[in-house]
Amino acid sequence: MALIVQKYGGSSLGTLERIKHVADRVHQARQEGHDIVVVVSAMQGDTDRLIQLATALTAHPNPREYDALVSTGEQVSMSLLAMALHNIACPARSYSGTQIGIMTDHAHTKARILDIKTHLIQEELSQGYVVVIAGFQGINPRGDVTTLGRGGSDTTAVALAAALRANECQIYTDVEGVYTTDPRLIPEASLLSHISFEEMLEMSSLGAKVLQMRSVELASQHNMPIRVLSTFTNHPGTLVTFEEKIMQRRLVSGIAFSREEAMIAINGVPYKAGIEAQILMKVSDADIEIDMIAQNAANKETADFTFTVQRKDFAKTLIIIEELSRTLNATSIQSNANVAKLSLVGIGMRSQTGVASKMFQALGQIGVTIQMITTSEIKISVVIDESFLESSVRVLHDAFELDKIKLEKQPLFMET
Amino acid sequence: MALIVQKYGGSSLGTLERIKHVADRVHQARQEGHDIVVVVSAMQGDTDRLIQLATALTAHPNPREYDALVSTGEQVSMSLLAMALHNIACPARSYSGTQIGIMTDHAHTKARILDIKTHLIQEELSQGYVVVIAGFQGINPRGDVTTLGRGGSDTTAVALAAALRANECQIYTDVEGVYTTDPRLIPEASLLSHISFEEMLEMSSLGAKVLQMRSVELASQHNMPIRVLSTFTNHPGTLVTFEEKIMQRRLVSGIAFSREEAMIAINGVPYKAGIEAQILMKVSDADIEIDMIAQNAANKETADFTFTVQRKDFAKTLIIIEELSRTLNATSIQSNANVAKLSLVGIGMRSQTGVASKMFQALGQIGVTIQMITTSEIKISVVIDESFLESSVRVLHDAFELDKIKLEKQPLFMET
Repeated sequence: MALIVQKYGGSSLGTLERIKHVADRVHQARQEGHDIVVVVSAMQGDTDRLIQLATALTAHPNPREYDALVSTGEQVSMSLLAMALHNIACPARSYSGTQIGIMTDHAHTKARILDIKTHLIQEELSQGYVVVIAGFQGINPRGDVTTLGRGGSDTTAVALAAALRANECQIYTDVEGVYTTDPRLIPEASLLSHISFEEMLEMSSLGAKVLQMRSVELASQHNMPIRVLSTFTNHPGTLVTFEEKIMQRRLVSGIAFSREEAMIAINGVPYKAGIEAQILMKVSDADIEIDMIAQNAANKETADFTFTVQRKDFAKTLIIIEELSRTLNATSIQSNANVAKLSLVGIGMRSQTGVASKMFQALGQIGVTIQMITTSEIKISVVIDESFLESSVRVLHDAFELDKIKLEKQPLFMET
Repeated sequence: MALIVQKYGGSSLGTLERIKHVADRVHQARQEGHDIVVVVSAMQGDTDRLIQLATALTAHPNPREYDALVSTGEQVSMSLLAMALHNIACPARSYSGTQIGIMTDHAHTKARILDIKTHLIQEELSQGYVVVIAGFQGINPRGDVTTLGRGGSDTTAVALAAALRANECQIYTDVEGVYTTDPRLIPEASLLSHISFEEMLEMSSLGAKVLQMRSVELASQHNMPIRVLSTFTNHPGTLVTFEEKIMQRRLVSGIAFSREEAMIAINGVPYKAGIEAQILMKVSDADIEIDMIAQNAANKETADFTFTVQRKDFAKTLIIIEELSRTLNATSIQSNANVAKLSLVGIGMRSQTGVASKMFQALGQIGVTIQMITTSEIKISVVIDESFLESSVRVLHDAFELDKIKLEKQPLFMET
C-alpha cells in the first residue's frame, strides 16, 4: 500500500463525462489498496470565464479579489469530482486550499507555497477517504486566498506529495508522456519511459507543454518522482526522477526547440570589465527577456556579444542596441529576426565526448549554417535559420537514433 | 456615523453593469460617513447553473460536496463587487463565510447560524474598508462549508447585523418594499412605510416574495430593524420593526392571499379525546402539509373538522379522509379543490373590535360565500371559492381604505 498524489488538469475535467471517467480512475487506484490524494485544476474554460468577468469589470482588478474570484474554478471541479466518487461508492471529501491550509506568501496571482498542513489529510486518509484538493490556490498569513499562477496545480500536487512523503506524484494530462522531440514534427519520436529532472528542466521548451517547470524544480529539490501520463489511456507514461534511479543511460534523451526567436550581435566592442552587464541591463530595463547569451572575445581589446530575444521584442531591442553601439563604439551589428533555437539534451553528454561534433557534422551535411552556439553540462543549443528547423530536428533525431529508444521495463509504480 | 448592513440579491447583481450600480450605492453610503458591511447573493442564474451541474452528474449529490459547490456562486459575486468598489476608489475587502467565521450547525443545505465571529469585520471597518461578505454560506464545527438554503442571504444579513449590533439591516431587492396587497392584483395597493415584525410574519404569503421568513423571525428575536428597499430607485422602502417603534397605528396593514388551496371537511365524527390528532396524523404521515385547521363541535357527541391543504395534495388527502370517515363513522365529507385563502393582517385588530364583522359584511355584499374561518390575534383568514378572490381582495382593500394609506414621515435611517 502506497500513498499516491494524482493531479488532473482542466482538459481531463472538461465535461461531466470526463469527471466521471477521472472518478473511475481514482476509484481503481483506491481499490488497488493505495491511499489517494487528488489535486484538480478548474474545468477547462472555467478559469478563462472568471478572468473575463474580472477584466470586463475593470482594467486593473484588485489582486486580492482577483485571486478570490479565480480560485472558485477549482472549488467547483473539486466538489464535482468528490460527488462523482460518492456516486460510485468511493468515499471522498473535497477541500479548498484555505480549508487544508496550503500556506503561501503574500504575492497575489503568483504566490509561492511556504508550508502545507498535512494532519487533516492524514486523518481523512486513515478513515478511508479519497482527499480531493483544489489546486492552484492557497492562503496567505492574513487568511486571504492566493493563487499560484497558471499551471500552479502541478506545483500544488508536487508540494503536497513532498509534504505527505508520497511514493509518487502522478500528473495526468492529455498526452502520453514526454517524447524525444515534438511528435507533431517528427512522427517517429519515441516516448521516454523515464527522464532525469535535469534533462526535464533543460527540455523546458518541450516540457512546458506537459509539466510546469516550477513543479519540476520543486520535485527535484524534494526528491519526489513525478510520473506524466495520459488520463485517456492506460500507458504508464514517463517517470521524471533522479539520475541515480535511471538504469539505462542514454547519450541524448531528446531534442527541444523553439521558434519565434530573434538574434542580435554587437561586434567589436572595446572591452572593459562590466561591459556585458552594461549591454544586458539596457535591454532588461526595457522589460525584454534575454534567452541565450554568447560572447567570444575576438582579441584582448574588443569583444563580440551575441544574444537572442523573443521575435516580438526584436524591433524594440534593435533600437536599443543601435543606440548602444554608437555609445560603445562597436564596429558592427548583426541581426536575424527569423531564427529558431534547437537543443540536444542528455545526461550522457557529461561523461561522453563527441556529441557536439556529431551534432555539427549532421547539421553541416544538410547545409545548415549555425549562427550561434551555447552549451551547458547536459545541453548543446544552436541558433539556426528557422527555415532549417524541421530538417535539422529530423537529421539529429536520426543521427542519435532517438526513434530506436525502447521503452525500458521500468516498473510502473501502481503495479508494484 | 452608523453601522449599516446592506444585502443585495441575485437580480441586483445579475450583470456586471448592475454590480457597478450596486458599487455606486455602497460607495455613496460610505461617503455619507457610515460603516458599511455588504452581504451578497450569487449573480442571478449562477446558483441554478451550479445546481444543474450537480444534478446532471448524479441524482443524489453528496450534501457536503453540494454545499462546497453552490457556495462558490456568492464567492464570485463578492469578489466582483469588491473589485468594482476598488475601481471607484472605495477600499473594500471580500470574505467568504469560511474566512469570516459564520459558524453553523452540521445540517448541510439547510444549516442554521450558531455564531458569527465579528473581530475581523470590526478590524476591517476600523481601517476604513467596506466589508463584502458572501451570503447563504457558513462553516460547521468540522470546518466544512455549509449553506443556509434558498434565500439564506437574507438570514446572513440579519444575523450579521445582530452580531455587529448594526443600526439597520437593509435588504435591497427589485421591489420598492411591502405593499398593502399584491399590486399586480390591485394597482391601488399602497406601499407601507413601516410594518411590524408580527404583521410581516402573518403576511408571509405576500412577504415571502420580498423577505425570507426566517430572517424576519431572526430580526424580531434580536430587535434588529430591517428595511426592504429597491436597488433601482431611491425610495426609502418599508421598515420592518417593533410595534412600539411604529407611531401611527393602523387597523389593517394588508391583505395577504394564496391560491392553489383545497379544503376538506369531515363532519359528524363521534367525539372523543384525541380524535383531532388521529385525523391529522394520518394526513401528515403521508407527507402532506396541513395549513388551516378549524373545528366546531356541533354538539357534545359529534364534531365537524375542516382543514386545508395545497391543491396538488388534494386527491391524495381525500382518499385518506374517505377511509378515515368509514373507520370513524363520520356522517359526511365535504370538499372543494378550488378554494383560495384570504387574510386581513393588522396589529390594530388586537385592541379594536368590529374588524371581523366589517370584513364579513363587505364580502357578503358582493355575494361571497365564506367556507371556513380561522383567526389569530392580528389576522383573520377566510377560505372562499377561488373565483371570488380578486373581487374579494378589491372590496376589502376599499372597505379598509388601504389605498388611502399615506407614507408616514418616518425618517429614513440613512438620512439622519
